[in-house]
Amino acid sequence: MEKKRFRFDKINLGHGSGGIMTRELLDELIFKTFNNPYLDQKHDGSIVNIEGKIAISTDSFVVSPIFFKGGNIGELAVNGTVNDVAMCGAIPKYLSLAFIVEEGLKADAFSEIVETIKATADRCGVVVITGDTKVVERGKGDKIFINTTGFGAVHPEAEISAKRITIGDKIIVSGNIAQHGMAIMSQREGLKFESDIESDTTNLNFLIEDLLNSFGAKIKLFRDPTRGGLASTLSEIATDTNIGILIEEDKIPLERQVAAACEILGLDPMYVANEGVFVAIVDSEIASNVVAMMKQDSKGLNAVCIGEITNDHKGKVVMQSAIGGKRIVTPLIGEHLPRIC
Amino acid sequence: MEKKRFRFDKINLGHGSGGIMTRELLDELIFKTFNNPYLDQKHDGSIVNIEGKIAISTDSFVVSPIFFKGGNIGELAVNGTVNDVAMCGAIPKYLSLAFIVEEGLKADAFSEIVETIKATADRCGVVVITGDTKVVERGKGDKIFINTTGFGAVHPEAEISAKRITIGDKIIVSGNIAQHGMAIMSQREGLKFESDIESDTTNLNFLIEDLLNSFGAKIKLFRDPTRGGLASTLSEIATDTNIGILIEEDKIPLERQVAAACEILGLDPMYVANEGVFVAIVDSEIASNVVAMMKQDSKGLNAVCIGEITNDHKGKVVMQSAIGGKRIVTPLIGEHLPRIC
Repeated sequence: MEKKRFRFDKINLGHGSGGIMTRELLDELIFKTFNNPYLDQKHDGSIVNIEGKIAISTDSFVVSPIFFKGGNIGELAVNGTVNDVAMCGAIPKYLSLAFIVEEGLKADAFSEIVETIKATADRCGVVVITGDTKVVERGKGDKIFINTTGFGAVHPEAEISAKRITIGDKIIVSGNIAQHGMAIMSQREGLKFESDIESDTTNLNFLIEDLLNSFGAKIKLFRDPTRGGLASTLSEIATDTNIGILIEEDKIPLERQVAAACEILGLDPMYVANEGVFVAIVDSEIASNVVAMMKQDSKGLNAVCIGEITNDHKGKVVMQSAIGGKRIVTPLIGEHLPRIC
Repeated sequence: MEKKRFRFDKINLGHGSGGIMTRELLDELIFKTFNNPYLDQKHDGSIVNIEGKIAISTDSFVVSPIFFKGGNIGELAVNGTVNDVAMCGAIPKYLSLAFIVEEGLKADAFSEIVETIKATADRCGVVVITGDTKVVERGKGDKIFINTTGFGAVHPEAEISAKRITIGDKIIVSGNIAQHGMAIMSQREGLKFESDIESDTTNLNFLIEDLLNSFGAKIKLFRDPTRGGLASTLSEIATDTNIGILIEEDKIPLERQVAAACEILGLDPMYVANEGVFVAIVDSEIASNVVAMMKQDSKGLNAVCIGEITNDHKGKVVMQSAIGGKRIVTPLIGEHLPRIC
């Protein structure tokens, strides 16, 4: 019979007390799993060395369900923040990690999530250096929420800024959209397809680094279209910079089953969350080389140029449809996919 | 009639969608309140300049109630993380800020908390540089949870490490203990005293900086005894370093009404959370000067030396009682004060 890892089956309020039970949980699970000199200081914080410009990003993850096709909340929490740091043109290096656990969460589930976080962090090349665990009463949370804050050194060649975007720049999407949102929604709705739709959650930092190594300042902007989808991300860029964005509907990469799932649920894939896709806005002269380089990478196999920056309809995103019509793409209003990440 | 600040009375799921409503909430409340160039980038992250050794600390705050005598969850979230960074011997400079809001939270309450965060950050001399807002369904959270991650440059003279503690070092407490926990508990239990017990939540970073300026490496350790109280903090230090700690019961600074409240509720003040107190373990030769300097500061008026590091009972904290007996102070087991911070 397998030896049980913990003396307890479920997380209870005592694990958030700051006393012996908290320490036992940390020692048995967190410190053993992560096992690095930063955490071993067991202080309230950690000390690292970084020089120069540092990119910092924070995100809380509240996805429901916490385990889904293609990943779990822990994987999402690492990839999501690693990607946000990368989108700033930086090389992610360190993560902080904070849990809010609902009393009654199964110790095995917590353990699996923590181990996934460690494996994902290793894959991303980042180190978890400090953390926190709080426990709330049953019915005052929902199994587990995770905050990660990530930081890394800005790439020396990077000049990522929406202000640098100019007319004629090309808009590239790194892969098929709407995978993550539809994986979660299919699971919630109990939809079955020929094969299951899996979340696209993955880390994009190495591909971003390669692109910066090769193209430097000719890359104007990176953004990952998570909550609100591609439509909301492009709309925000157009609004904030008062430029026009023209995209072509039939260029947008979308997997057949995901498209079918969207149709069944009445969702527009342009508004559905992605967790392994990014948008690059680049100088037109490098666009085809950027797409070619992305396609060489497993994270960018379906990369494609979907449109460009125009002088028309400033502050708006316009989509040219397959049959020739044009429509304005508005950002998401309200919410149709709560707690997708 | 006062003009309403928002077009909505309550936070709803749409405010966490990543779409227009999220943007409206951020523009109206967050960006206007904090109004700094870091946040104005409106990117997924922020870029700052720091050189050298950086201290990083993260904490999620889940205190209930969210408004209490002496503060609210927002003030706690700033002071708590600022203090944790300071305890590493660092000068806090930047904060990330992430909210998990329960659907239905009153917009006014959220607004008040955000404004408190801004005022507290200003008082601490830190800048909120990046953030995140998620909304969960009613009954899946509890009004609001806040994560802050703080960072700052390590003081050039600081050599904070439990490993540097040696026999004879003195243990100093900066102020009256158990205030925060008893403020929360009195409010929950509806206890009334001659005057209300107020949380001691405050920022300790400037006093810490002054001490490091004056005494540098002769200060061995700073710790703030929050969850689990003074007993748990001292026990952890003793266990982790395998040194003996001897403290004197009648030296421990405790306000009369707080002592009374503890007695009524059957709580030992040694285990009750503090949010504006720190422990300093220092070379014996500077101990009286450290206490004197603390007493000059409004944050350290009740500072006192409560004991010392001994060669006896390694790994344990022993308390000498007022009437001469000795007892071992164990860390908190289980939980008697859930969601105190």
